Amino acid sequence: MKTIQVVKNILDVNDRIARENRKLFDEKNIYVFNLMSSPGAGKTTLVERTIEALRDRFRIAVIEGDIQDTFDADRVARHGIPVVQINTGGACHIDGNMIREALPALDLDETDLLICENVGNLVCPAEFRIGENAKVMVLSTPEGSDKPAKYPLMFQESSAMIINKTDLLPYVDFDMEKARKDALTLNPKLEIFPVSCKTGEGLHGWTRWIGMQADAFRNA
Amino acid sequence: MKTIQVVKNILDVNDRIARENRKLFDEKNIYVFNLMSSPGAGKTTLVERTIEALRDRFRIAVIEGDIQDTFDADRVARHGIPVVQINTGGACHIDGNMIREALPALDLDETDLLICENVGNLVCPAEFRIGENAKVMVLSTPEGSDKPAKYPLMFQESSAMIINKTDLLPYVDFDMEKARKDALTLNPKLEIFPVSCKTGEGLHGWTRWIGMQADAFRNA
Repeated sequence: MKTIQVVKNILDVNDRIARENRKLFDEKNIYVFNLMSSPGAGKTTLVERTIEALRDRFRIAVIEGDIQDTFDADRVARHGIPVVQINTGGACHIDGNMIREALPALDLDETDLLICENVGNLVCPAEFRIGENAKVMVLSTPEGSDKPAKYPLMFQESSAMIINKTDLLPYVDFDMEKARKDALTLNPKLEIFPVSCKTGEGLHGWTRWIGMQADAFRNA
Repeated sequence: MKTIQVVKNILDVNDRIARENRKLFDEKNIYVFNLMSSPGAGKTTLVERTIEALRDRFRIAVIEGDIQDTFDADRVARHGIPVVQINTGGACHIDGNMIREALPALDLDETDLLICENVGNLVCPAEFRIGENAKVMVLSTPEGSDKPAKYPLMFQESSAMIINKTDLLPYVDFDMEKARKDALTLNPKLEIFPVSCKTGEGLHGWTRWIGMQADAFRNA
C-alpha cells in the first residue's frame, strides 16, 4: 500500500504541473498534442509528415522525449523547425515537469502548434499528463491487432489513434476491423486514421483532423 | 531526490525477493529465463516455437505477464504445457514478488525449464530481476535498427537478443549490421539470433543455444 500511495502523490504533483503548463499554453494560444506509441511504431516519421503538411498553416515547434541521445531531434531539425530534446536519463515517459523545463528553449510567442513526442512505450506515458490538448497514439500493423485489448489505458486516454505501416498489411497478421472494434469498445470517441507514413496513404485524413482541432482551439 | 530514494528502495526489496526465488529455483534445478521486448515483437510466438523445439528434452512451464486478460496464456496452454497468468493490473513489468506469488500454481518438482514472458515494454522490465538465470530480449525488424542506441538498458542486461521477423526485411528499413554493432557495443557478450518465428528460419540457432544454457546449468 505504501508504494501505491507514493505513486498517487507523484501523479498528483504531475497533474498540478501539467495544469500550469496548460495555463501557459492557453495564454500563448498554443495547441499541444502528446504523441505516444511502442518503440518503432513510427512517431518521428509521423512528426515529419505532419510538419510537411501543416507548416504553411501553423508555426510548429517540437519537443522530443528520448531516454538518451538526439537522433529524433536531429531528424526533425532538418525540417528547419524549432526543436528541443528532452533526455529522460532512463525514465520511461515524459512528464509535466520535463516539459516545463524544456519550454524556455522555445519562443512560445512564435508557436501555434507544439508537438511533444513521448518515449517509445505503450504503457507508462498514458499515465502522465503534460498540459496537452490531446493525446494521440500510433499503433503499427506489425505489432498486431490484439494490442487495444492487451494495453487498454493508452487507447482509453487518446483522442486519436493512427494505425501506421498499412503498407505492410499484405505481410503481417493484422485484423483492421478487430483493432478498430476493440479500440472503439475501450473509447467510443476515438478518431482512427489508418496511414502509411512511408507511402503517404491516408495521411491527409490525419493532418486534416489535427489541423481542424488546432484551428478550433486557437479560434475559440 | 525523494522520488529517486523511493525507487531505489523498491528495487532493493525486489532484488531480495528475486534472490529468494533464485534460491528456490536452484534447489529444484530449474533453469529460468525472462523474455522481454516491445509490444508485438513476437514474444509469445517465440515461446510457442521454443516449446515445440525443446519439449522432448525438458519439462517446460510458462509464466505469462500481461496487464490484463489471458490471451497469451491461452495460446501457450494449447500446447499442453503448464502455464500461469500474472495480471499486473496496469503495471508495466513483472517483478520478483509477482513471480513468487505465481509459483504455487506450478509443480516445480516436475519442471526443468521455466519461461517467464514479461509485459511488452522495451524500458521498465530491464530494471526488475525476477530470479532468472538469463534475460532474453526480442527486437523485431519493423521496430528499426536504431533501438539499441535509443533504449540501451535492456540490451545491456540481456544475455541473448533475438532479431525476429526477418521475413519482413525486404519491406522494412532495418540495417542488420547496425543493429548488431550497436548492440554489441553496449554488451560485447550478447548472443544474437536473427530468426523468423513465422517461417522458422534461424530458430534452430536460438533453441540450440538456450537448450545448451539450460543443460549446462542443470548438470553443473
